[in-house]
Parts: sequence; structure tokens; C-alpha cells
Amino acid sequence: MVAQLECVNRVQVRQVQAGTQDTVSTYTFDSLSLQRGGQIGPVTLAYETWGQLNAAGDNAILITHAHDAVDPDNAKAAWWNPLIGPGRYFDTSRYFVICSNVLGSCLGSTGPASLDPRLGRPYGIRFPVVTIRDMVRAQRELLVHLGVRELAMVAGGSIGGQQALEWAVSFPEMVRKVAVVAATAAVTAQAIAFNEVGRQAIMADPAWLCGDYVAGQGPATGLSIARMLAMITYQSEEAMEMRFSRNPAQYPPVPSPTFSPDFGGRFDVENYLYHQGETLTKRFDANSYLYLSRAMDLYDVSEGYPSLEVVLRRIRSKALFVGIRSDFLFPAAHVRWLADKVRALGGDAQYVELDSPHGHDAFLKEWSQMAAALRSL
Amino acid sequence: MVAQLECVNRVQVRQVQAGTQDTVSTYTFDSLSLQRGGQIGPVTLAYETWGQLNAAGDNAILITHAHDAVDPDNAKAAWWNPLIGPGRYFDTSRYFVICSNVLGSCLGSTGPASLDPRLGRPYGIRFPVVTIRDMVRAQRELLVHLGVRELAMVAGGSIGGQQALEWAVSFPEMVRKVAVVAATAAVTAQAIAFNEVGRQAIMADPAWLCGDYVAGQGPATGLSIARMLAMITYQSEEAMEMRFSRNPAQYPPVPSPTFSPDFGGRFDVENYLYHQGETLTKRFDANSYLYLSRAMDLYDVSEGYPSLEVVLRRIRSKALFVGIRSDFLFPAAHVRWLADKVRALGGDAQYVELDSPHGHDAFLKEWSQMAAALRSL
Repeated sequence: MVAQLECVNRVQVRQVQAGTQDTVSTYTFDSLSLQRGGQIGPVTLAYETWGQLNAAGDNAILITHAHDAVDPDNAKAAWWNPLIGPGRYFDTSRYFVICSNVLGSCLGSTGPASLDPRLGRPYGIRFPVVTIRDMVRAQRELLVHLGVRELAMVAGGSIGGQQALEWAVSFPEMVRKVAVVAATAAVTAQAIAFNEVGRQAIMADPAWLCGDYVAGQGPATGLSIARMLAMITYQSEEAMEMRFSRNPAQYPPVPSPTFSPDFGGRFDVENYLYHQGETLTKRFDANSYLYLSRAMDLYDVSEGYPSLEVVLRRIRSKALFVGIRSDFLFPAAHVRWLADKVRALGGDAQYVELDSPHGHDAFLKEWSQMAAALRSL
Repeated sequence: MVAQLECVNRVQVRQVQAGTQDTVSTYTFDSLSLQRGGQIGPVTLAYETWGQLNAAGDNAILITHAHDAVDPDNAKAAWWNPLIGPGRYFDTSRYFVICSNVLGSCLGSTGPASLDPRLGRPYGIRFPVVTIRDMVRAQRELLVHLGVRELAMVAGGSIGGQQALEWAVSFPEMVRKVAVVAATAAVTAQAIAFNEVGRQAIMADPAWLCGDYVAGQGPATGLSIARMLAMITYQSEEAMEMRFSRNPAQYPPVPSPTFSPDFGGRFDVENYLYHQGETLTKRFDANSYLYLSRAMDLYDVSEGYPSLEVVLRRIRSKALFVGIRSDFLFPAAHVRWLADKVRALGGDAQYVELDSPHGHDAFLKEWSQMAAALRSL
């Protein structure tokens, strides 16, 4: 989920590793009715595409993420890189690959930092609660606009995996294959709890101003602390032990989010977390963090249906579910359970587990295992 | 660890379940040299005792905790209750049972909220860094004062388990048996990381005032958030799922630490965490929280010795190490590893694992399993 909460925030044309050029485009439509009530409009989505849509409009692949999948500036997030391009798994000589930002995000798509047309100033926390289903319905508007009639595949991890699953149940007739990576039918109480601690840290920052901060003057301290916590949950005890153990901080030390006295030196893991916290504040909007993390909490694929069985029976796609051995945010056992459930209901579902110590983040790191898993679909 | 960071803060005489009377006593001595340099004085420790010390001074049992072990006001923390009393495991008709608060704590023992005699005002963050070893050395001063020459047993969990282990290596000639529960030779990078997020939340609260807040006007919001996070780490994904799942909040709702808009309702787990956060702010000092959580981070039993092997060979006690299957703060595998290490070095050590879903807190909940484990010592 490291990258899932990031933004499409680059506007210049850039060289992509695969050798093609990409630009961030936007599409705006008038209005979207929301799952939890009310509507929002206009709605803008930022997105990128590679390759060409065929005449039948059925060679599209949607990669669901809250940021774009190919990011040469951020090697850690760029696990898609080896998979996208001519002749690669997401073969841009055959497929029209789309990566769409999500409703509720920042810098490019409509979110809390966007202007509320009723008030002429940013929504802030007047932005409505948006759900994974709303994000997917907004993406569908984009796809229709692009001329896509059928998706060869929807694939995504974490919040992107929630979107992929939602695509398969909301628009089963449009999705031939789906890859749900490190995501489940609904997050655990523990995941909600971690998210809520992060949100409280943001809202406790006096600079939050009940969400009405000026862009660039937001609750950087609170957002840093939320990010520090999130970074722990994206990893694992095992991975952090391998990487940091009890080593002292490497110099130069990174400023901590708050004034902090010397409590017996600094551990390397602390320095790392400070760095991660600080970095996020430079590229992400705190209110978007609140809304997107909440969308993850609220997601329950069965919401609005008589039962989980009823909704899972809607899936027509060939489905791949990928769990990660060391993921404690989306436990592998829950991913496997979901795959088994879909199969038991007659669906074409398989489960693959990444044998990785890297926790939730493994889907952004174990690209060879990820590629092998995807190839099995 | 829920209770480990609590205080001995009751001054009235109370009826204990076992039928004896207990009062909180204090002992003050002039000065203590500290592991990380410097010294502190005077030092006061709050403590409680039950039973009588024999003439030889060798029938004492020390229960290491940062609060007292028998707390009829707090059933959750009172797992010792069924174990302490005439005829029980900690048999007060045979043993002189002592429970001592720790250096660095609040309300009763010397800590950051105590008056700095040099300045005539509370230490705040001028309080020196104190370690588990310092806590144990202060407890030894108390025991000498009480006439204790030998301990029949030292037993404790979490930060109390760190103290128990430290007792066995610092004063091997004084400790006949030791029970180290849910504690290890040193905490993991992940545990340090969680603790640091909590500390940052406290220090980010404007009311913290760099530690110089007035008693009763401290950083309640920050401390609440720190406590919310800590409560997650004391439990487990499994236990939280059983208890809270994705249930909506039960009414009446508890105020959240900050002003929080309605982000699609409230989950029961959130309400629970708000309650836990609020409760702690009424009984615990935020600066003590910083110092005690840091003492846990800094603890490495081998510090100051040539190697881990050298220090563990010092143990003369019959030793019991208790791990908890679902504990992710002090993973069972680490506790088992330590027990195996002590045994491999010639020590009389055994390992027992509590088969509990309750995570780190299991040692405060699974009293029958705890009693069985202790009886094996």
C-alpha cells in the first residue's frame, strides 16, 4: 500500500523505461452518484495509457492503483516496470494498458483538495465519503469515454486489489480476467485500528484546521506520524529485523516529525521512518490520506447484497488471488479464504502465495514472483 | 504491557481479594548511578508487600511490573489475583511477596513528574534516560532495605519480564527462580518502531510543551493516540477479529481524541480504542510513558558484556521462559530462542508457550495457563 496512496502528480512528458512516452491525461464528467448517498460533480480522473485500443474495444487492461504503475522516479513502486512494455506481460504492442488514479486522491483527480464548485474553495472534509465501489464506478466512466467495451484484465494490489475485486463483481460482463493482489473481501479490525490511529494523528495536528488548511501548509507532522505507522504495517517483523535490527541510525540523521529529545540515541529503524514520513508530506495531501484510508476500511465487497455468496457468484472473470506469507495487513489466510470461496461457488479462481518476508509491500518488491503469479492467470 | 506502564496511584488502604490488607509504601534512598551515565537522587520507589519475611530473609518473591500485581479495581490487569494469597501459587502464608513500581514511573516512584531537587520543579525531559538495569538496581536497594537476602523467585511479564531477566543476570546470587514472561533479550525493530510512533504522537501534541506541561494539563490527545496504537500491539489480529470484527460501534459512543468528522460511521474497534486512550490519560503521565517505553526499546541484556553468551552464563536461577503464540510484540519464537540459548549454555531453563489468541496481553488474561506454566517452575 506504500504507493497506493500516492498521487499522479507529474504533468510533464517523461521517458518511460519501456521506451514509450507517457503523459498524464485527465477526463472530467459531470456527476457521480455515491454509494453512501448523495452525488459529486464534476469528477475528474487522472490516468495514463500505453498501447492502442483495438477497434473492438476489447484489448484493454486496467491496472488499479491510486498512483500510476510505472514510475521511473520511484524504483520501489516500480514493480510493474518489468511487466509493462512491448513483449512483456502487460504487452503494450497487443494491449491498451490504462492506469487510473482514484476518486478521492489528490493532484489530478477529484478529491478533498479539489475546488468545491458550490463554495468556490477546496472541499476539505466537506468532501463526501467515497468508497471503493465509487472509485470503480468513476473508472468505468473513464473507460466508456476511452471506448473500452471489455477489459482483458483488471489487476491491482492492496487498495488496487480491492478495486480489482470490485470491478469483477460490479461489472462482471466487462472483465475477462482479474488479479486481486494482497486484498480481501473486507479488511480486519486490526487494519481498521491501525488506519484510525494514523487518521487521529493527522487530525490532532493543529495545522490540520479541521481540514481547511491551505495547500502546502497542511498537517505535515501528523501526516508524517501516520505514514510512519503505515510503513510498519506494510512490512513485517521479519523484514524489519533483517533490514534494521537494532542498528543505530546511519548518518546523516533525518529530522524527526516533532522536537524530540535524545532518549538514548536513535535506532536506524527510527531514522528510516522519519525519512518515510517526511517524504510523503512532500507529495501527498493529508485529507486525501484520510479519505482513501477510510475507503479501505469501509470496503466490504458484500455491502448492498443479500450475502457474500450472492455477490461472489456475480464474478464471471478468470480470477487470480495473490496472498503474501508475511502480510499482516491483508493476511494471506484471508486472501486464500476468498479464493476458495469463489471457487466453491463455481467461479474460476486460483490462489498463489508469495513466499516473501517483505509483508504487505512484497507485491511492490517481489516482481519475479509477481510475474510468475500473473503468468498463471 | 497494558498494565506495565501503569502506576501505583492508590493511597488508601484497600481490601485485597485474598483477604489481606495492602497499602502502598514508599522507600527513598539518596542516589543511584545510572547505566547510561550520571546519577539521580533522591530515588523513591512505591511498592506493596504481602506476607512476612522470614528471619533468614530468603522467602521473598518479587513480582516485577510497573504497577502492582493485585488490582481489584482493574480486573483486566489482575491476573495475579488468583495466584496470590494464602495457599495459592504465590503463597503469602509462606512467602513475602513484593511488588515494586519502577524508576521512571509516575505517582509514587521517582520519574519525570517528580521534583528535580536542583531546579525545584518537575524533571520533565531533564529526567535522565533510565534503563531496565537501572530499575532493577533501584529495586535491589529497596530489597536490601526490606531485609531481603535472597529471592525465592522473580516473576514478571513484558517490561516486568525484562526486569526479571535482568535480575537473573545482574544479581544471580540472589535469585533462586526466575519467570520471564512475554519478554526477550532485546525487542525487535518493529517493536521499537511502534513505540516511536507513539512517542512522536505524544510529543506532537502542543500541550506537551517539550515536557514542561503542568500536571493534569498534559498532552492528553497525544497520549490517547499513543495508547490506541499500543493497545493494538498488545493484542492480535485474531483476537481483535473475534472481539470486534467489523461491528459498528456500540452506543454510547466515546469521544475520539481529536475532533473527527463522520467518515462513514464508527467501528466498534475504534470506539474501544478511544475508550482505552481516554482512560490512560486519567491515570498516567505522558513523560513517564516516553521514558518507560524507551527503556523497553533500549533494553539489551547483553549491553556492557562481551557477548550475549557471557551474560546468559551468569544466570544461576532455575528459569522459566513463557512465550505467547499470538504475541507479535515479543514473538514467541524469540522467547523460545532465549530459553534454548540459556539451556545450551548450561543453564536450567525451560520454555512454555501459552496457546492463546490474545497476543501480548495473554499473560494478563490466560491466568489458568499462566498458573500451569508457573507451577512447572
